[in-house]
Amino acid sequence: MALTEFGLISRFFAGKTHYRSSTLLGIGDDCALLKVPDGHQLAVTTDTMVENVHFLRGTDPKQLGFKLLAVNLSDLAAMGAEPIAVSLALTMPEADEQWLSEFSAGFQALASQFGVDLIGGDTTTGPLTLTVQAMGLIPSDLALLRSGAKPGDLIFMTGSLGDAGLGLKMAQHLTKIDCQIALQRFNCPMPRVQEGIALRTVANSCIDISDGLAADLGHILELSSVGANLDFERIPLSVGVNQYLKESGDWAFPLCSGDDYELCFTVAPEKADLLNFACTQIGIIETEPGIRISRNGLIDTLKVKGFEHFSK
Amino acid sequence: MALTEFGLISRFFAGKTHYRSSTLLGIGDDCALLKVPDGHQLAVTTDTMVENVHFLRGTDPKQLGFKLLAVNLSDLAAMGAEPIAVSLALTMPEADEQWLSEFSAGFQALASQFGVDLIGGDTTTGPLTLTVQAMGLIPSDLALLRSGAKPGDLIFMTGSLGDAGLGLKMAQHLTKIDCQIALQRFNCPMPRVQEGIALRTVANSCIDISDGLAADLGHILELSSVGANLDFERIPLSVGVNQYLKESGDWAFPLCSGDDYELCFTVAPEKADLLNFACTQIGIIETEPGIRISRNGLIDTLKVKGFEHFSK
Repeated sequence: MALTEFGLISRFFAGKTHYRSSTLLGIGDDCALLKVPDGHQLAVTTDTMVENVHFLRGTDPKQLGFKLLAVNLSDLAAMGAEPIAVSLALTMPEADEQWLSEFSAGFQALASQFGVDLIGGDTTTGPLTLTVQAMGLIPSDLALLRSGAKPGDLIFMTGSLGDAGLGLKMAQHLTKIDCQIALQRFNCPMPRVQEGIALRTVANSCIDISDGLAADLGHILELSSVGANLDFERIPLSVGVNQYLKESGDWAFPLCSGDDYELCFTVAPEKADLLNFACTQIGIIETEPGIRISRNGLIDTLKVKGFEHFSK
Repeated sequence: MALTEFGLISRFFAGKTHYRSSTLLGIGDDCALLKVPDGHQLAVTTDTMVENVHFLRGTDPKQLGFKLLAVNLSDLAAMGAEPIAVSLALTMPEADEQWLSEFSAGFQALASQFGVDLIGGDTTTGPLTLTVQAMGLIPSDLALLRSGAKPGDLIFMTGSLGDAGLGLKMAQHLTKIDCQIALQRFNCPMPRVQEGIALRTVANSCIDISDGLAADLGHILELSSVGANLDFERIPLSVGVNQYLKESGDWAFPLCSGDDYELCFTVAPEKADLLNFACTQIGIIETEPGIRISRNGLIDTLKVKGFEHFSK
């Protein structure tokens, strides 16, 4: 069956993900048209996933569709934005209907949960490469920036650290630990959209943990010209991750393994009572640059960094 | 030298393309932030170019950067939108500084011409794949749709047809014709941004000619539930394309060769006097579906289609 450039997207996606009155025109013309309500700003983010770089050949397409959208919604969450619309650029070797059907099912499962419209995109032949651009709304001047952390701010995070990293090691058969929750978090991370929105008037700075806490908190510190002191014993770790740390002896693993998609944010002490969702204080912002970790009564200086493309 | 995920984009692009007050926050945080002025809508489009599918290995990176942006701005032009911002998803095998420097120079040459801000993106390792999402502003309810053509509308186009197709044949050494203008139009097409904006209150429908006039006019006809009668003798052809038609005998070539990025639009007869830029009337919209071509006193029914990915 012939799948034309246009028909490919419309067949598997069109009409199934139209939730928003902000979507004035979706798939099918030269552009989509969005309405941005008065008093709001548009947050825009882009993430790409490449076969054998971000996921292995043979990855379940349903999980891939879910995760591709999740990592983009996580960037919106880190800004405090409410997701409204996404576009999808899909490059694949051939039009595999079964693969596309499952991929779109995973994508739509998450899109429907947050009411996000797929408004357009492009389909091309080539090596499997998936790019999403996600757009969200923020009331003017309430965006959560990386640059707003102040000395004395308390450092918080949602959820727990290292589970996705453990899930990756399980998928690569590099550990004998069998922790289905970790595998689920690696394959289908849940973006912290509601938490990001709740932080708009509370947090001084925010980022999502995609490259590891050390690297991502490092971005906040750099852009805010401050440092941090983390209390290792406070960092929430799951049973599986604790087991992995004992087995491997690699205590810094949860600080530098990526893909958790939790939020890390800083809050002035007098505003900490306003936090109305589950989160954990893991440290404090200081004037001295760098990250210090209090652990077993000693202080380590953390030099690890997360995964970055093109690093050498 | 290490080029980190973040540094790659900021080193070659940041700060060089910030022209707009609508860009509240550019490269460097989880998201960019855009302001959409009251009374305006945001037009959004995405286009991907893949090595050895849309361009040959070894293509001049400066031309590639120019063309990647041009094809996206052309989609905005077809909607009547004023381009304001773009994001770039760049997948490449390795961080080749020379290549990146030239690519960004071509990209910025066109971005500066139209005052378009590069607001963010993503860089990943993998086979060379380039995706741009472009955003533009349109006063509410003035967008030029494909679906608005009415029987009796005059069909117009900007510029001439087939030059980019001839340029491609020259690049592939499939013709002995030496026409530098055709090669230039293939490598560095100029999007019809000002013409699109001028058409907002004049045209009933509009599309850009990327897959060939027959295919793209076909989209207008399909979405408007009408047909068209084209006068072949009126279609503007350059000296080089006329020479190619004589040589090859393939008279339909300019109707189905792509990449011209001219605008094709329809206008009610009583509004034709309002057209204040160079364009040519090439036919008329009729109620009967399909495209008919008057040529040498005969009428052909055009069944050709342009290039579409995944077509079989």
